[in-house]
Amino acid sequence: MTPNTSKLFKAALVLLPLAGFIAPVAGADEVADLAAKLDAQAAHTGYIFNTLLFLIGGFLVMWMAAGFAMLEAGLVRTKNVSMQCLKNITLYAVACIMFWLLGYQLMYGVTEGGFIGKFAIMHFGTAKGDLGSGYSSYSDWFYQMVFCATTASIVSGTLAERIKFWPFMIFICFLTGLIYPIVGAWEWGGGWLNGKAFIAKTGSEFFDFAGSTIVHSVGGWAALAGAIILGPRMGRFVGGKSHPMPGSSMPLATLGMFILWLGWFGFNGASQLAMGTISDVSDIAKIFVNTNMAACAGVVIALIYTQIRYKNLDVTMAINGALAGLVAITADPLDPSVPVAMLVGGAGSLLAMLIVPVLDKFKIDDVVGAIPVHLGAGILGTLAVGFTNPKITFLAQLAGVLSIGLFVLVCSTILWLAIKATIGIRVSEEEEYAGLDHAEVGVSAYPEFVSQ
Amino acid sequence: MTPNTSKLFKAALVLLPLAGFIAPVAGADEVADLAAKLDAQAAHTGYIFNTLLFLIGGFLVMWMAAGFAMLEAGLVRTKNVSMQCLKNITLYAVACIMFWLLGYQLMYGVTEGGFIGKFAIMHFGTAKGDLGSGYSSYSDWFYQMVFCATTASIVSGTLAERIKFWPFMIFICFLTGLIYPIVGAWEWGGGWLNGKAFIAKTGSEFFDFAGSTIVHSVGGWAALAGAIILGPRMGRFVGGKSHPMPGSSMPLATLGMFILWLGWFGFNGASQLAMGTISDVSDIAKIFVNTNMAACAGVVIALIYTQIRYKNLDVTMAINGALAGLVAITADPLDPSVPVAMLVGGAGSLLAMLIVPVLDKFKIDDVVGAIPVHLGAGILGTLAVGFTNPKITFLAQLAGVLSIGLFVLVCSTILWLAIKATIGIRVSEEEEYAGLDHAEVGVSAYPEFVSQ
Amino acid sequence: MTPNTSKLFKAALVLLPLAGFIAPVAGADEVADLAAKLDAQAAHTGYIFNTLLFLIGGFLVMWMAAGFAMLEAGLVRTKNVSMQCLKNITLYAVACIMFWLLGYQLMYGVTEGGFIGKFAIMHFGTAKGDLGSGYSSYSDWFYQMVFCATTASIVSGTLAERIKFWPFMIFICFLTGLIYPIVGAWEWGGGWLNGKAFIAKTGSEFFDFAGSTIVHSVGGWAALAGAIILGPRMGRFVGGKSHPMPGSSMPLATLGMFILWLGWFGFNGASQLAMGTISDVSDIAKIFVNTNMAACAGVVIALIYTQIRYKNLDVTMAINGALAGLVAITADPLDPSVPVAMLVGGAGSLLAMLIVPVLDKFKIDDVVGAIPVHLGAGILGTLAVGFTNPKITFLAQLAGVLSIGLFVLVCSTILWLAIKATIGIRVSEEEEYAGLDHAEVGVSAYPEFVSQ
Repeated sequence: MTPNTSKLFKAALVLLPLAGFIAPVAGADEVADLAAKLDAQAAHTGYIFNTLLFLIGGFLVMWMAAGFAMLEAGLVRTKNVSMQCLKNITLYAVACIMFWLLGYQLMYGVTEGGFIGKFAIMHFGTAKGDLGSGYSSYSDWFYQMVFCATTASIVSGTLAERIKFWPFMIFICFLTGLIYPIVGAWEWGGGWLNGKAFIAKTGSEFFDFAGSTIVHSVGGWAALAGAIILGPRMGRFVGGKSHPMPGSSMPLATLGMFILWLGWFGFNGASQLAMGTISDVSDIAKIFVNTNMAACAGVVIALIYTQIRYKNLDVTMAINGALAGLVAITADPLDPSVPVAMLVGGAGSLLAMLIVPVLDKFKIDDVVGAIPVHLGAGILGTLAVGFTNPKITFLAQLAGVLSIGLFVLVCSTILWLAIKATIGIRVSEEEEYAGLDHAEVGVSAYPEFVSQ
Repeated sequence: MTPNTSKLFKAALVLLPLAGFIAPVAGADEVADLAAKLDAQAAHTGYIFNTLLFLIGGFLVMWMAAGFAMLEAGLVRTKNVSMQCLKNITLYAVACIMFWLLGYQLMYGVTEGGFIGKFAIMHFGTAKGDLGSGYSSYSDWFYQMVFCATTASIVSGTLAERIKFWPFMIFICFLTGLIYPIVGAWEWGGGWLNGKAFIAKTGSEFFDFAGSTIVHSVGGWAALAGAIILGPRMGRFVGGKSHPMPGSSMPLATLGMFILWLGWFGFNGASQLAMGTISDVSDIAKIFVNTNMAACAGVVIALIYTQIRYKNLDVTMAINGALAGLVAITADPLDPSVPVAMLVGGAGSLLAMLIVPVLDKFKIDDVVGAIPVHLGAGILGTLAVGFTNPKITFLAQLAGVLSIGLFVLVCSTILWLAIKATIGIRVSEEEEYAGLDHAEVGVSAYPEFVSQ
Repeated sequence: MTPNTSKLFKAALVLLPLAGFIAPVAGADEVADLAAKLDAQAAHTGYIFNTLLFLIGGFLVMWMAAGFAMLEAGLVRTKNVSMQCLKNITLYAVACIMFWLLGYQLMYGVTEGGFIGKFAIMHFGTAKGDLGSGYSSYSDWFYQMVFCATTASIVSGTLAERIKFWPFMIFICFLTGLIYPIVGAWEWGGGWLNGKAFIAKTGSEFFDFAGSTIVHSVGGWAALAGAIILGPRMGRFVGGKSHPMPGSSMPLATLGMFILWLGWFGFNGASQLAMGTISDVSDIAKIFVNTNMAACAGVVIALIYTQIRYKNLDVTMAINGALAGLVAITADPLDPSVPVAMLVGGAGSLLAMLIVPVLDKFKIDDVVGAIPVHLGAGILGTLAVGFTNPKITFLAQLAGVLSIGLFVLVCSTILWLAIKATIGIRVSEEEEYAGLDHAEVGVSAYPEFVSQ
């Protein structure tokens, strides 16, 4: 041993303990395991947050069923209130069952760029979590299911006070089990409105964040077809004039609106579909703000419009203004800045106000104003994305709106006509006069109050 | 130094820097610290999720108090509506106070396999979190407290329109401070229905996930005892016939049902008691779906049944069908597949429909139908677990249902009789005729409306 | 090489592989990276939890707008119900818009110890999350925005049935855009009530956890000034006597109270402002319990008081008792033990009951009892913190209450007088007699019911 190597050797003997003989050195495997564990934990936490988002969003949207029930119970006349409550309870149940039986598979079993998903009876979720998917399959299903119910709720308001119960429910079965899921597959299922061919023609995919078109205008088109085929209520348009038929309870309608507004935070917010990153949760927060401000703008515009146009205030217009603002911002509650969101909401509200007399002119009787609110503002909000979101072309939005509108209008018309031709859709004149509560339900809504 | 050892030594000198002389080596302690920190972080995150579950579940179940209030306000007659509102506000307050004073300690201070917990005045939570417990003690307490209030809500509906306010509240004090907590201790507190002796005899523990029996049938038995001792309302059963007394407001009853349905996601979902793992949160998602679908089946079965049996629709039956479906699935909303959950919910609904005329036959006057819904469907749902959950025997379920039923029925009967014998429980005939709002509250529910 | 060094050298050769030659050694850099990643992940998770808290808290507080709407719709007379609904919808919209336009910047742009924040038009959040802040800026803004709306809601109840719509809305613009944000800046914005000069004089900062003073008494003072300037309703105080004017619907008032109670879990709970640690989430759980128990105590005290004082039960007193309990505990729902929280809630309730006849004596007409509940219990709860929280002096609380009260009372008085002198604030006698629904809204709340 030369003195040099001997020194080095001694140095090594001194340094080695530092490297792990006294304080043991960590193995790379161990650290790799730890790194993997850290990643797994991040994935776990993300999975829980995503699932929680669907659950919270889901119960908020489920709650919208109560909102529609109260809104419609408040806007129909006393003699039809029990029926309207019953319809809203039942259509929620039917929509959930049909979406489970057929809808979910049709909507999310679609091939990329395809038109329609799988026909398969009964959806089964995966009971235990699959970490790779990033969320519980049951939570996603629950969330999509309550969306489907929302579509159905829209129709019942327009057709209130004159449609028979069971034929209406048959329509709802088709709407929630077939029509809505097929349309949903086109966009949210990853179908042709997201496909290469469509993008090649229109310059971008069709974009509908939370369903201005897919949920709200689908309900609106189905309601429009129904309203035309069903005809107006007796006495609604007599002698060339429109006779308003005031709703039975403004506080219930107000309550319904507030429930819907609350539920909309779940509707738009949880449509982000993920909450496990700071980016996602920050997006959800922006969606909350934009959703809220669009509705606020809708209220203010409705008030100013009715004050100027009709020289007085109207609580039903304020309610529908809020809802129209909410519907309009639903197509893209994330990208716009707050002032733009308010513009979209305000424009949706204004358009809804302007559509009301147009429907009157065509003698289309929409009891609660669902067509102006859900169809009118839904279209406006969807088209607006072409201007507010730089990645999306107006042409793509127009193509989406038109193709979905055409499809739903045609399907609904055929369906309504078929039901009308077979079992009939409208109650008799006597029954309509007496009210559906007397004719079909046998329970008055307010049996002890003396009505005019 | 031999050339060989010299080479090895040189190799060591080359390799050592790789092991940490140039790029310093990580100490095992450091990595162990990191691993411990990672575990601690996982535990922290789990703790927050679990606590959050109790808080969200808790506010949803608290909201059920509003649901019962609206349901019952809608199903009593106008002259008793203020009183029914007041009872529901008060019983919630009283239940929370009694559960704090006595209940929690009785319920969760029980020894393993025991019968009754600690008698200790006032529960104090642990202010700062104890990581080991996995959740905040206050959050658990809050959640258990609102469950206790639910039990009390069930009783007030059955006995409406004729019971005096203060005697009713005395009963609620005993129910929520003693009876419910003792029964809860048997199962959820880890008492004898989970004990070795019980399992040895019946083949499994008694299983009641979220309280078909422990919450709903306890309320139902207490209501049944009260209804028998209190007697029916004047004019309810006259000349051997049952005279229905329609409720004052169907939309309020509908609203109450929707509130309860919403709250039930907290009731069943948060009864998973943990949300910090993907397994737990996925289970909660499945519970949401099963709970929802059981209620949907309940609605549909109720509609079909009333359509066939009575040849018309009935909104109160749809409401009670939904609630019966919810009560039935509560005993086990996790294990059944979706179709089985719907079977259980549908069966619960059907049973509730079938019990209504039986109560009439025995002249038991249940104003809102709480006995069919909470007792009938509660028993059915609990027994069904013997078939749907392979780990649980029917015998165990039957033994649990019978022992709890017997205990609550006996205690309630003694209590009602004692209150009746001392301060009385029923208002005078004049007061009942005038309505409790006039007699005891002094505030009409709708003072300006002209009633029949 | 001596035999000794040779042995050591051999030992080193044997041990070195263990230290990383066969199982490679982990680099310190790698471990440092991992440690940084772990910290980043913890920060991410905390950020998501904090943001989620603001979102959940925010939608619960937003829901309180519905609570105020229902409470007030139930407590005004039938002929003013539509107007009361409309006012509540509109004031929520206006409050959100004004807080966005001016309020947020005034409230949170204040310098440390300062008096007033920035005058800047339109608040813009930071779209993508900034990890350093610990939460999404939009979520914080959303949460603060709905608080601002709560303040506005308080005023509308007191001034119901006689104030004109548009002048009322002008006041709300100033209240939510200027008055409330300036006061908020003093404390929550980090202004002078937290400043060194204040602490030097009073012994501690002013403490108002969730707004007994900053939200509730601000609304209360504004309402008091308005009630005095506006004068009582026609016929309310005639011949030296107080003539109660019962509200139109007790179940709606009850519903409103339950909505507010539910929303209060968001109001107080999310005022913790963070949920990312076990300490924070445990504090939130304690806040839930204390908030709930204070309300329960408020109900029971109100019942006992009305039973003793008036010899009957009163549902409106139970409602206001619950609300007063909630208002009182809001100043510090975290520090008190449960019994102390109940004492504070009960005392708030009792004080509210005692203030009612005082207002009558001074012929101040508060339609829904907002002044006793929000101002009376708000002051009591804030002062009580001087006794329940050892870090806070009574003097600091008194100074805060007085300075905020004086500021709001003066500003409100000037504003009400200015509006009165210019466009007027009160409807004509004919309009008041006919009801605001007829005069200004043109839509009756219940058009078909025959009213007395």
